[in-house]
Amino acid sequence: MAFDISGVLSARASTASVRWQGYPPFHFIGGNIDEPTVPVDGLAAALDKVIKADGHSMAKYGMESGPQGYLPLRQFVAANLNRRTEMEVGADEVLITSGSLQAMDLVNQLLLEPGDTVVLESANYGGALTRLNRLEVDYAGVDLDDGGMRMDHLRTVLADLKNRGRRAKFIYTIPTIQNPTGTIMSRARRLEMLEIAAEFDLPIFEDDCYADLIWDGSRPPAIYALDTEDRVIYCGSFSKTIAPALRVGYLVAPWAVLRHVLPLKTDAGTGSLEQMVLAEYLPQHFDTHVDSLLPVLKAKSDTMVEALSEHFGTAATFEVPVGGIYIWVTLPEQVDSLRLSAVAAEEGIALNPGPEWTVDGDANRNRVRLCFGHPSIDTIRRGVAKLADVCHREFGVPERSGNVERD
Amino acid sequence: MAFDISGVLSARASTASVRWQGYPPFHFIGGNIDEPTVPVDGLAAALDKVIKADGHSMAKYGMESGPQGYLPLRQFVAANLNRRTEMEVGADEVLITSGSLQAMDLVNQLLLEPGDTVVLESANYGGALTRLNRLEVDYAGVDLDDGGMRMDHLRTVLADLKNRGRRAKFIYTIPTIQNPTGTIMSRARRLEMLEIAAEFDLPIFEDDCYADLIWDGSRPPAIYALDTEDRVIYCGSFSKTIAPALRVGYLVAPWAVLRHVLPLKTDAGTGSLEQMVLAEYLPQHFDTHVDSLLPVLKAKSDTMVEALSEHFGTAATFEVPVGGIYIWVTLPEQVDSLRLSAVAAEEGIALNPGPEWTVDGDANRNRVRLCFGHPSIDTIRRGVAKLADVCHREFGVPERSGNVERD
Repeated sequence: MAFDISGVLSARASTASVRWQGYPPFHFIGGNIDEPTVPVDGLAAALDKVIKADGHSMAKYGMESGPQGYLPLRQFVAANLNRRTEMEVGADEVLITSGSLQAMDLVNQLLLEPGDTVVLESANYGGALTRLNRLEVDYAGVDLDDGGMRMDHLRTVLADLKNRGRRAKFIYTIPTIQNPTGTIMSRARRLEMLEIAAEFDLPIFEDDCYADLIWDGSRPPAIYALDTEDRVIYCGSFSKTIAPALRVGYLVAPWAVLRHVLPLKTDAGTGSLEQMVLAEYLPQHFDTHVDSLLPVLKAKSDTMVEALSEHFGTAATFEVPVGGIYIWVTLPEQVDSLRLSAVAAEEGIALNPGPEWTVDGDANRNRVRLCFGHPSIDTIRRGVAKLADVCHREFGVPERSGNVERD
Repeated sequence: MAFDISGVLSARASTASVRWQGYPPFHFIGGNIDEPTVPVDGLAAALDKVIKADGHSMAKYGMESGPQGYLPLRQFVAANLNRRTEMEVGADEVLITSGSLQAMDLVNQLLLEPGDTVVLESANYGGALTRLNRLEVDYAGVDLDDGGMRMDHLRTVLADLKNRGRRAKFIYTIPTIQNPTGTIMSRARRLEMLEIAAEFDLPIFEDDCYADLIWDGSRPPAIYALDTEDRVIYCGSFSKTIAPALRVGYLVAPWAVLRHVLPLKTDAGTGSLEQMVLAEYLPQHFDTHVDSLLPVLKAKSDTMVEALSEHFGTAATFEVPVGGIYIWVTLPEQVDSLRLSAVAAEEGIALNPGPEWTVDGDANRNRVRLCFGHPSIDTIRRGVAKLADVCHREFGVPERSGNVERD
């Protein structure tokens, strides 16, 4: 008789995956990026060089660099951040992580106990919310406008929590290409967030993993760069600029914080080949590669915008993306995006329904997030047309002359 | 004024690292392996081939393989286990992990709540004990003999826990090259463990991460292979055979278990380059590489044994290793290995004191674990001589004609 695992599972293991079925034809979810732009030849050349020069050091868990990650990569990360975000950090403040998601897991482990509260943007990365739910941590949403998290509302939310005796542990923010709304928070607002954090004596966790994908390349300083009180923990990633499957991100924090993070990184290091190849490839190629990537993503964004306008007309409203790989679309009131998502899935279309990316699900009941980084121009066109058909059939909007798929 | 992180740390984040200081000259700890044997040229050739063939798929988190890991690597892992351990598994039962340590973290998360008890070998991998401590999980040690975990004592321990109303959640075992004692559990004893597990209706977590390093290559079937009740979760690793810094291990379990493990692997996948290069390199080269590695490790083991005999004489007793990368040494009663470890560290010698690798620290107060995989033959000789000097100076044993370092 087979042993029944269900009787011994921990509470956090109660969810179960279904078997992976491959990608649907219209895969408008996930942080995947454009396939042809992955710099395969450059990475191959860099790998060949670095593994022959330094490959034997892989006999040790931390190579010659110890638990914070491959030193040449940490040096590049620090220099790159200092140049792009106005930070002034050294390699010692950098921890290489297995993607920025591991950085997020580490910060959550560092600071959170069940029953704590995290304050964050009310529309948010679904994976952040899932993680907090699993940790039995509450979250309080702060309203967004076209400049990102609203500081007046942040103050209200924090004051309200304080009055109710709830412990807000940190502010989680995606200030640069907010996920899913795509906004960029101004320098002034970043400074105001630091003031408010000081007032309530809270740390800030700044997630900047889309920040390199701004079409015109201009961005305000990182909150970390503006901070004078060692209040900010920062994370970023090469998933969106080089390749997500590499799983290389980084966490930046003062040593007083980092020394508590290191014991929590129990995987004995992030993969050495990824660290080595990026350390070899990036110093010479990061800027030119990103410069070549941005027009490709912008063309896909433009296609998504055009297709939405063509097939949904006034039934779809959105801010035109200024960077990133997703668009946050508002559909008419009668559209239930959870139901739309389920029906669309049957037609081979995957999308993120608003409630799964929202602190208060009802608030974004009629919104969807559509990712355009991975699908081809043609797939975007056909997928949006098909989605319009599905939406029309199910909810009567957009109004159509006929239920015919258009090219 | 600087923000003080200490006021907001979670309970599990209370420990702090010290800054990494590099490796000491006599580094007899850690799962590091021989540097010259890392197959750098073979890996470089495989990387070049596979990244050019399949590199663009890294634009997607799971490449074309989904969340269980790169399919060609899972296929190799399954075939290799079937051949070496008498399992009969397919790629669908394999999850690629970031080292076997991530597999351990996943199993712990899957099954354990604070206050639960794990039953395990009384001398054990220090990292396993650290992890359980952090999870506020108790553990009950089972005595070892030269055949590994003693089954009569396992039954006693489980019965005792049951009588005291404690919940034993699983049996954790390293049956093949036990860490630190180096024993190999017989087939008969493995079958008996399965019987006892059935009697108490418990799962078994079989950690086989040193199993490929047996000098004569012969081993009993995996407990997983002998199990007819889907009671065993298995993990293994390429850290010891290819390179630890790659961070590639695997967890093998029936889908009924694996589907609950997948949602806990929140890192969005293990590094793609490591998975790809191993999938390309291993099918042709694994056996020949391991065959070439074993004599190198055995020569180091022989050197360690000779040096211990030469410099410690009868003051050091041990079983001669039949595989692996460590030796478990008993010193005279008066030696406090924790103090020896502290004094040796000042002389540039790192070792694992028995109490840190033991359920009941006092039981192995005068034992040490010495790793021989990474240091050179010469370093082993000089390090053991130096350790004998330190030990003599501090505890009067081994008895020496003079306190002179010998070559």
